[in-house]
Formats: sequence, C-alpha cells, structure tokens
Amino acid sequence: MGALDAGCFEEELENGVGLEEDVAEIGWESGMTDSESESARAIEDAVRVLLQGLGEDPEREGLRRTPHRVAKAFREGTRGYKQKVKDIVQGALFPEAGLETGTGHAGGAGGLVVVRNINLFSYCESCLLPFSIQCHVGYVPSGRRVVGLSKLSRVADVFSKRLQDPQRLANEICSALHNSIKPAGVAVALHCWHIQFPEALPCNSNSTYPSKLDMQGWIQVLVSSSSGVLKEEKCSLWDDFLALLKLKSINIERGDTNLSSASSWCPSRVLETSLCNGHCARSPKNGKTSSKTGVTHAAMMAAVTSILHSLGEDPSRKELVRTPHHYVQWLMNSRSSNLDLRLNGLSKANSCNVVDGNFTCLNEIQSVLNIPFCSQCEHHLLPFHGVVHIGYLDKQEGKCIERSVLQSVVHSFACKLQVQERLTRQIAEAVYSIFNIGVIVVVEAHHLCMISRGIEKVGSNTATIAVLGQFSTDAKAKGLFLQTIADNNASEG
Amino acid sequence: MGALDAGCFEEELENGVGLEEDVAEIGWESGMTDSESESARAIEDAVRVLLQGLGEDPEREGLRRTPHRVAKAFREGTRGYKQKVKDIVQGALFPEAGLETGTGHAGGAGGLVVVRNINLFSYCESCLLPFSIQCHVGYVPSGRRVVGLSKLSRVADVFSKRLQDPQRLANEICSALHNSIKPAGVAVALHCWHIQFPEALPCNSNSTYPSKLDMQGWIQVLVSSSSGVLKEEKCSLWDDFLALLKLKSINIERGDTNLSSASSWCPSRVLETSLCNGHCARSPKNGKTSSKTGVTHAAMMAAVTSILHSLGEDPSRKELVRTPHHYVQWLMNSRSSNLDLRLNGLSKANSCNVVDGNFTCLNEIQSVLNIPFCSQCEHHLLPFHGVVHIGYLDKQEGKCIERSVLQSVVHSFACKLQVQERLTRQIAEAVYSIFNIGVIVVVEAHHLCMISRGIEKVGSNTATIAVLGQFSTDAKAKGLFLQTIADNNASEG
Repeated sequence: MGALDAGCFEEELENGVGLEEDVAEIGWESGMTDSESESARAIEDAVRVLLQGLGEDPEREGLRRTPHRVAKAFREGTRGYKQKVKDIVQGALFPEAGLETGTGHAGGAGGLVVVRNINLFSYCESCLLPFSIQCHVGYVPSGRRVVGLSKLSRVADVFSKRLQDPQRLANEICSALHNSIKPAGVAVALHCWHIQFPEALPCNSNSTYPSKLDMQGWIQVLVSSSSGVLKEEKCSLWDDFLALLKLKSINIERGDTNLSSASSWCPSRVLETSLCNGHCARSPKNGKTSSKTGVTHAAMMAAVTSILHSLGEDPSRKELVRTPHHYVQWLMNSRSSNLDLRLNGLSKANSCNVVDGNFTCLNEIQSVLNIPFCSQCEHHLLPFHGVVHIGYLDKQEGKCIERSVLQSVVHSFACKLQVQERLTRQIAEAVYSIFNIGVIVVVEAHHLCMISRGIEKVGSNTATIAVLGQFSTDAKAKGLFLQTIADNNASEG
Repeated sequence: MGALDAGCFEEELENGVGLEEDVAEIGWESGMTDSESESARAIEDAVRVLLQGLGEDPEREGLRRTPHRVAKAFREGTRGYKQKVKDIVQGALFPEAGLETGTGHAGGAGGLVVVRNINLFSYCESCLLPFSIQCHVGYVPSGRRVVGLSKLSRVADVFSKRLQDPQRLANEICSALHNSIKPAGVAVALHCWHIQFPEALPCNSNSTYPSKLDMQGWIQVLVSSSSGVLKEEKCSLWDDFLALLKLKSINIERGDTNLSSASSWCPSRVLETSLCNGHCARSPKNGKTSSKTGVTHAAMMAAVTSILHSLGEDPSRKELVRTPHHYVQWLMNSRSSNLDLRLNGLSKANSCNVVDGNFTCLNEIQSVLNIPFCSQCEHHLLPFHGVVHIGYLDKQEGKCIERSVLQSVVHSFACKLQVQERLTRQIAEAVYSIFNIGVIVVVEAHHLCMISRGIEKVGSNTATIAVLGQFSTDAKAKGLFLQTIADNNASEG
C-alpha cells in the first residue's frame, strides 16, 4: 500500500460516497481573494441565466453544479492572464560553455533546439470553445546559455491559457520566448484543431453551413511565427527547423501556414457570414424569449459579456465584440425543445429493403455504423462528439431502416444538454420502440471536457453501450456486432 | 492582446530575465505547513548527498537548483498519498433514470461505460524512476447513477501518484472505483512502459544485463483488474470491455495480462538478480567512497532512505527494502568519471573502409544513424534517452569510422549528468577532432522530466543539432544529411 497514514485507503473505501451532501452551495477554493470569489460568483450567475435561456431548470439534477464547473473551467482555462513569463523562465537559464553565437561552433548558430509535439489547448476568442493545439517550438541559443526544455512548454502554456486565435498565439509564444531567453532566434509552429459546429439550425435540413458537415472531423489550421536568425530569408535555419519536425513525421512545407484561413477558422464566423448573406431572418432576435423561462436572447448575450468581463477581458475589444453572439448561437443548438418532432418520422413505414453501402447485413443483425453526432455535456457545457453504431434484429428478412432516419433519431437526442450514457440509452429505446426483438447501440466520443480543464487527457475517448431485448441475453450476437464495428474501423484505417 | 492589465505583456517582454538572481536559497511554496517544508528540505539535503556521491559539486551551475527540482518532482509525483477518492467522486455521481441493474435494460448491466487511452505516469517503487501508463477504465453503472467521466481519470491519477508497481496500481484503481461508485462492476487495464536501463557497468563491455540492450525501447507490461459482474467468469461483460478497447486498436486478449512479469518488470531487479548470480564482486561496496567528495555508498543509501521517509513512505516495507540500493545503483551509471578513457580509442587508426548495413554513403557524407543512448538530465536527475545521428565528411574516399567506435563516443558522453544541448556539442567536437572537414550531429530524445512532473507532455520529443566545419556553411550538405535521417525513419516505419 504505502499510504501516508496506514489504513487511509481502507477508510476511503469504507466511507464510500453519499449522494445526500448539499451541493447547491459549494464554496470556492480557499485562498481566493474577495475579488476573485466575486468574479467566480458572477460567472456562475451568468451561466444560470444561459441555462434558463436554453429552457433548462438550473436546479435539476445534473445541472445544479454546472454553473460552478463552467466557472471553474473558464477560470482555469484563462489562468494565463495572471502568469508572467519572467517567473517561469527565471532560474531556468543555464550557462553552457561553447554556445557561441557565431556559426561554425557546435551548439552555435547551427545549434537549433526543437521540442516537438507539445499538446496544449486554448479557448477560441470567437466562440469561447476550447481548441486543441500541437505545438512545436525551436530556438537557437546564444549568449552562452540554454533554457530548461520544460520552460518552452510552460511559456507556450501561459499564452494558450487565454482567449486566443491561432496566429496571435504563435506570435505571442514566439515574442515571449525571444524576449525572455534572448536567443539568436525562435521558431514556433502550431497545428490547431477546432471542433466542427453542428448546423446552426439543427432541425432544419436546409442547412446554410457552407462546408461539408463532418462531425467526426475537426477544422484544422497550421500557423507559424519566427524571430531573429530564424526569420531571415537567406538563412537556412527555418529549413532545419522544418527538417527536424519532419523526423517525427510532422510535415510542414515553407508557405504551408495560412494566415487568412487562421483569421476566419472558427465556424461561428463562417456561419455568421453565411447567415447574414440572405438568411438574417433566421438569426435569433434580441427580443426572442425562451417560452419556458422568460429569459430573453438579450439577457443571454449580456450574461456572456459579463463572463468575458469576469475573466478580466475587455468585451469591447474588436475580436470579442461578436463573441457573446457566437457563444449564445452555439448554445442555442442545445436548447430544450420538443424532441418528439423527429421521432414521429420513425416508424415501420420508414423501414425499407434498400440496402446501400452503409449497411452490413450479418445474418439477421442489421448494422448501421459511424453515424456522426455532436452533443453537449450538461456538466460542463462543452461539446462531446463522435459516432454512433446501431444494431437491431428484425423478423422481416432484408428489411432495414433508412440510415437517414436513424441519423435523425441520433440528432434529435444529441441536440440538447446531454450525458453520453443517457444519449446511448435514449437512442436504443427509440429504435427498440419500433424493432423490439433486439437493439444494441455503441457510442464512441471525444469529450472536450476531458481535453480541456484540469484533466487534459488529450487522447482519451469514451465508449458506451446499451443493449435491449435479445442482445442482452445473446452474448454471441452482441460479440458479432462489436466485431463488425472493429472490422469496419480496421478497414477504414 | 486581451491581457488582464493592459501593457502587462509588454512589461514581461521588456523586463526579460537576468541570470543574477540568487537561486541558492529558493523558498518553498507558500502555504506549506512546517512539517511539509521540513520534508522538502530533507529531500533537498538527501539529493545533495547523492550528487556528491556521484563526484559532482552541488554548487556548480546547472546543479545548484537540482535538489530543489528533484524534491519538488518527488513530492508532486507522490501527491496521491494525500488525496482521497471520496473528495474527488463526491458531487460527481449523477442520478440517471433507466439505469437498472437487471440485464435487458438499456444502460443496465449491458450498459458498460469505458474511457480509453488515459495517459498517466507513476513512480516505480523498485527504482524510484517514473513510468508511463496508458490506462483504460470501464464500469457498469447500477443504483440509477453514473459518475462524471473525468472522475475515472482523476481516481486513476490519485493511485498513480504514489510509489507503485503496475499490478497493485490496477487493483487499487479498481477497488477504489468499485467502493466509491458502487457500480455493478469495474474493469481496469493498464499498459505500462518502464525505461530500459543502461548497462550496470557502462565502461565494461562484458555486460551482465540479460536482455537485449535496446535503449530506444521500453520494457512493457500489461496488467488488469476487475470487480463485480466484470469479474464473473460466465459473464460476457469482460469480453465487451475488451471489444470496446479493440475499437480503438487496443488489442488485449483474455489471459494477455501477465502477473509474474509485472512483479519483476523493473530492470533494477533483473539486473540485481543477474549481478548476484556470480558477479557480486562488482556490486558497489558500502565502504566504497567517491574519490572526489568523500561520500560513501552507505551515505548515499541512507540519503535515499531519508527521501522515502520524507515522502511519507515506510522504507522498511518489503517492496521498498531494496529500493535505495536500486536507485543508487542506477544513479552510479552517471558518476563523474574520466571520460577520456573511451576517447583514446577514437583516432584515424580506428577508421576503416568496411561499409556495413548501418552505413549510408551519400557522396562524401558518411552517415551513421540511430545510435541509441540513455543519459541523465542534470536538472532533474531523470533519464532522457533516444538516438544520435552523426554525419561527417572525409577526404579519404570510402573511409568510414566504425559504428562501434561512435557508439562508444556517444556512450562516454551520455553516462554522466548531462543536458541534451551539451551532449550534442560534445559528440560533435569529439568526432571533429578526428574528422575536421565537417561534422553534423542530431540528437533526438524523450525526456522523462517532460513526461512526469507538472508538465506531463507525454508525446513531446526534443531534437538538437550541432554543426562544425563545412556543414555550418554548406546548407545543401546539411539538408542532404537531414533528409537521409528522414528517409531512414520513414523506411523503418
């Protein structure tokens, strides 16, 4: 065991956990100043307004602590505003003999140091959602000193923990390292992934979203920044930087990085532009009120502005002016609505015996795999997205339900505040209401709440499974369906 | 910018950083209790003894703050002793309708929830080095409640931040989740990577290390643990757990996990067994004193025992009894020694015109790629390991230096307290002393100090480059050599 105090583990195990504790009023961390507690409370209040605007009851189970969690995540995710590069680098600059600035000395101007594949995340200043970053940093030491390698990661982290856009983030990391280490030059390359938005108008098939709606995919952008000798056109050091990245299969060519795409990468901006080009009538009006709670769109916008203010930001700086609008627009994808709307479409009438490429008929198990979805975690107000695999048994041989109908079922349960476990069960129950011999549903999803916040488990992925009817007793049928998914995944590489 | 206080960024940039600050006496974090500060100081003192035992001057640049860094890393890496599972899970158990325990209910006994690919690290109780973990956790909800997904990761983290061995870690995560969530069952699978040790006697080619010395590789082990319905032999849920892992290409078969290999996976134990089987004379004697500093082996052992005690561990528990011996033995690989010993072997006399499969002759550039090494970061007393690529120009066409000689050069510079930048430069200078037309050295390494500690940048990898002579002026030659490495990496997949 090796616990600090003997028996502490057993005590933990014995005590277990009750659900009875009063979680309505959880105090903020000790050690916070009055002003910090006040900001935290202000964010919580704002989140309650947003939940009401979505037609939700902030006091329902599952949502009671959501304002606290969201406030905590926002504060952690923007802690970079309070950190100083100087404090980080101080004490981590080490004299190193032989590091002359002149070329021709080992460890000199040719002595590039590159740290590759640093995983970070930041918050998009356009929509307030986190985005993932793979960061590559290089510098050429000078002045006979090198910096501790971990400081390159820590400095990058300071600037990523602010409301950002990719290009400014790269520039800020580059400038900060250049000015604190005072090297011959710095190079920064960032590969950023932004979640793809579900359609702005989820229940309308006439999507105005201009790009292909691939909910499994991410919007990617590559940006870079350089200083000193790494910026010089005639110097080959930038090529060396790219060559060292290539050794790790990170393929960036000169001129690959795209400033213009980076400035408009956030789908909220693309969507807005698209909406304004002839679809303004669909944009929510400020006076529009949630029928359930009486919270207006304007009140939701004001709540987001208050969050920005509480984070220490200036809501009037030009990059943030439209942010409340974008964030509310995105949240409204998850507004509580009459979900039965779409389920009306699901009946035997919609089943057909057309078997297209998306179907795999395995004995009598009908499999519909890889239905993409994007939903929103009700505990953190952050997206989780991935794919749904549905299997069902039908007596009528060869009869299948159309993929588009199942896609609608998935979508109708996804476009609200959810947890993956419930989403899985609800999809299974909906399909089972029609095909009541046996249903199996597997959902695989990335949770942005696992990538951002204190957890930062970048590669983690959650799978849930629900079985009804024959699948719950027939292990072989269940195993066959799971193998079908595995085979399909393998064949898609 | 969006900084909290306007101009704060510019101020950071302007102030830069001086090297003048007094870093000899850095205070511990505010908020520590007296007893915590005392433990921290005790670890620092112990690390100073270890440095002296290695023949190092703890006051030299680069080492002055090492005791502080090591103490901080040990304390952070074992913070799990002070964390309680109850505090983590509390407030994160959510009622979820429809989660019956009976089979046949969606989200019931078939409602497995699996989080895959959680990256963790822990400290090996046998040798005190960190090891990497890829953790997969599953549970079957019951009692109409589910747990917040991030808590599965947080609970796993509590037990990984202790001195551990893989199987006990899996068991503890499993028990803790079972007792705190009270589900129908829990499944835990851990894939662990331990760094391979360099030879016990680095300057002796008669290695007693039994396994193939592959310093690029890791020692891997797979362990698992399960409870409740997931433990039942006749139940198919364990198969479902494995099937859901398989969807992410995590291939574990029933019976794959190996308890016996896990209990002896640490190379320090393998090495010790091997040494005791006939080579005990080589084992350091307690009375042996570092010629430079007068610190005995016994004093180093006592220092490690003191570290264990300061971390709140019981140095007399059976798994820890040999740990001071193992840690000191491992540290002694890096003792300051007469490195010129091996360099005597490097002269033109050792060059030859035998070109074996390891050589790539590219015009007049001789390339020797992928020489494995393992060294020790002097800032954190943690390993960094990887490969060295060496290129040089020679007038005598077809003349090459033997790979084994270059391997010795690399090894002689690696087996001491180092930083990667210096290692790169020293190798380049050594080769240049013989082949003085042009030399290029690229070192690629994983740093355990980037994986463990607060940073936890699992996938990060550092590349350094040093160029001398013609390579520093001939960008084309440099580019050709870098391309050779890239091509070689690509062909090795």
